[in-house]
Order: sequence, then structure tokens, then C-alpha cells
Amino acid sequence: MQGTTGTPPQPTDTYQPTDRTVPTRAPDRASYDKELVHAILDEGYVCHLGFVRDGAPVVLPTLYGRVGERLYVHGSTGSRPLRMTGAADPGLPVCLTVTHVDALVLARSAFHHSINYRSVVVHGTAYEVTEPEERRTALDALVDHVVPGRSRDSRPANKKELAATAVIRLDLDEVSAKLRTGGVNDEPEDLALPHWAGLVPLRKGYAAPVADPALAPGTALPDYLSAG
Amino acid sequence: MQGTTGTPPQPTDTYQPTDRTVPTRAPDRASYDKELVHAILDEGYVCHLGFVRDGAPVVLPTLYGRVGERLYVHGSTGSRPLRMTGAADPGLPVCLTVTHVDALVLARSAFHHSINYRSVVVHGTAYEVTEPEERRTALDALVDHVVPGRSRDSRPANKKELAATAVIRLDLDEVSAKLRTGGVNDEPEDLALPHWAGLVPLRKGYAAPVADPALAPGTALPDYLSAG
Repeated sequence: MQGTTGTPPQPTDTYQPTDRTVPTRAPDRASYDKELVHAILDEGYVCHLGFVRDGAPVVLPTLYGRVGERLYVHGSTGSRPLRMTGAADPGLPVCLTVTHVDALVLARSAFHHSINYRSVVVHGTAYEVTEPEERRTALDALVDHVVPGRSRDSRPANKKELAATAVIRLDLDEVSAKLRTGGVNDEPEDLALPHWAGLVPLRKGYAAPVADPALAPGTALPDYLSAG
Repeated sequence: MQGTTGTPPQPTDTYQPTDRTVPTRAPDRASYDKELVHAILDEGYVCHLGFVRDGAPVVLPTLYGRVGERLYVHGSTGSRPLRMTGAADPGLPVCLTVTHVDALVLARSAFHHSINYRSVVVHGTAYEVTEPEERRTALDALVDHVVPGRSRDSRPANKKELAATAVIRLDLDEVSAKLRTGGVNDEPEDLALPHWAGLVPLRKGYAAPVADPALAPGTALPDYLSAG
């Protein structure tokens, strides 16, 4: 069907929208751009992982890491969602969401109050990772996600620690970003109201690192932290 | 059964733990203290609301507000989760989670990397709010949640805006907080390793507000923002 005037070929730098990833409202705020999705994911510290247990939803915050088009989540082998992917023939249907709040949007009208945010929602099936090399890669990615470059500057997991750690994988396939940017959207007839309106950006980044009291003598603050 | 030496009476300033709110691991990090739960909820801007759609989990970020032991979420009457609570006889089973990341915990070992965080997980059933006065209270709470005191300094919703807004309620009943605080927990044999270890606190609060260019002349920055 190439060359017809029907649906254009989907560029490979975007995710294919699905019924679940096209929002029911404000579709202009949705994006399927892979670069944008990756940037939002890489900036976050925790994701919110949703799964279904006994028919009811459960949403837990957890660390994650990204390697290309795969997300990894880890945890104790005893933790609930990770146990549910064990013996992982069918896998565990999950929804993994990462959100950044960038600014409060204060409008003159209560109705137009909002926030500027960037979020990514990933739908899919999580599988336990058992292959040792992929587990190592995933665990490095989880540490490097928190502080890029950190995995090379720490003691790798030993056998006992590896045995206590479950890793699950979620492919980036059914994915969308949603974001609000820009200023206040008040009604024209409200502009003269005496209420302050504008953006209140939230502060980002690190404060000054606090060294562990038992730090080995002469251990300097690493470059990857002083950039803040 | 009062006065017996069996289970002590549950103090009313804590939530009653349930099977769903007792974690499978790190139970020492769990709390059911209402004051702590409220403080964590009140500090957040967005929650992550989980529900089940066609058997699969969905997790969406959304604004919320608290009035005593009730949380409120609002949205367009056309949005998916809000539509699902309509004709709300049975209500919509949800899990609502709020998480704050306070600090990155950099250990000498990859395994002991962590974050200091505070989270609240609420399980329950969400119902549409139709009673006009409760809707007004909820919408004020949603605005005041973002910036305390703001609802009094904005134009209240008019009839058309109210008609376009759905409000849902979730009672705080099956609730737990989970938190990690404190420093690095490295193994004793790792303490002499040359890797920097410590806490990297994340910055919090507001940056300088940015006024809307169309602000009515003479409109000052309100006190509730200058405190930052």
C-alpha cells in the first residue's frame, strides 16, 4: 500500500498511538515523540507503577531505569508486584507513569487554575528478567538513572544481593507524553479583574550534598554531583 | 470487650491497617498516623490516580484537594476516569498515591542506593459528587491545595464552568504512609571503600513568580506567594 494517499507511513521516531494512549480530552497536549518521552522519563526519580490485584488497582511509587526502549524496575524478591511477575509466563499488565510538575498556573478565575506539567504514561506487560547480563545492565541503569555515571563509582552487587533482587522489564511500545506549557488562559472578560495571575515555577535540582559521617578520609565530592 | 488485655483499642488518630495497607516488606517504614498522612497529602501538587479499565491498570496524574477525611479530584465531565464514576451507584475502585522525593541516597554499594521519600497510598471507591454545596467546597479545596488561600482571591466558577466540571470523592479510610528517612545504610565492610556516600537533598518550594503580561495595572504580588 506504499505510495497511496491514505495513512502516511508512521515515522520511526514516534510511538504509534492506540486507543489507550489517545486522551479523551485536550488531545493537543499529547505527544508520541520518542525523544520527548525519553527526556521526560530520564528526568524523573520515581515512577508510579499501577497493577491490578484481586480486581482492584494498586499504585506504588518505585525507582526505575531506562535502557533504550526498555524500562526496568527492581525490588526485593518478596515485594508484591515483583512476586506477581514471577513464573512470568503471562507477565503482569501494568501502567507506569512519570510526572514532573514544572509550574503552578494561577488564573484570575478558579476554573482556569492549572499546572504546567510533563508526564509519560506507559501501558504494557511487565516480565521478570532472569538473564544475568540483562539483570546487570538493568541494575546499572537503575543506579545511573538516579545519578548519571554513579554505577561506575560504587561497589557492584554481590551474589547475595543479586539473589535478593528481582528485576522486571517493560518495553516502551504503547506510550504517550502529555504536557501543559505556557501561560495563563483566562477568559477575555476576566483580564481586568484585580487578582494576581501568572506562573509560579517550582524549584528543581539538587541542594548541597551532605556527606556520610563515616566517609573514608580524603574522599572528595565527585564531579557528577558538584554540577548539581 | 473494653478493659481486656487483648487487642488495645485503636486510637482514632490512626487509620486501621488492612491487608492492602500493610506492606510485604520494610513494614518499619509504614505509618498509619493521620497527621502524617494529611501532611504528606497537603504538600503534594499532583496525585497518581489508578483505576482499572477493561481489566488493565491505568495511572494518571491529576490535581486533588483534601477536606478533612475526604479527597477530591476534578476534571472535565468528558474525561475517562470521571465518566467512569458517573451514574455512580457502584462507584469506581481507585488507588490514589502521592509521593515526595526528598533526597537521593548514595551508598558505597550499588545495592544500598535508595531515595528518601514520603508517600501516601489510598485505596477505596470514588464516587461522583453531585450535591452543589459539596461541589463548591471541593472546587475551593482543589484551588487552595495548590496555593493555600487562593480560592478567595479568584473569580469563583460560573454556571457554565460548573456544568463542565465533574468532581469525585474518595474517603480517607484505607490509607497508609510509607517513608524512608535518615542516612546511608552501607554494610560495615564497605565503609572504607573510596566511593563518596551521602545524601543529595532535592530542592523544594517556589522559584520567583512570573506575572501574566496582561495583569491589571497595580496588581501586587499577593502575600501568599511572596512567602515562597
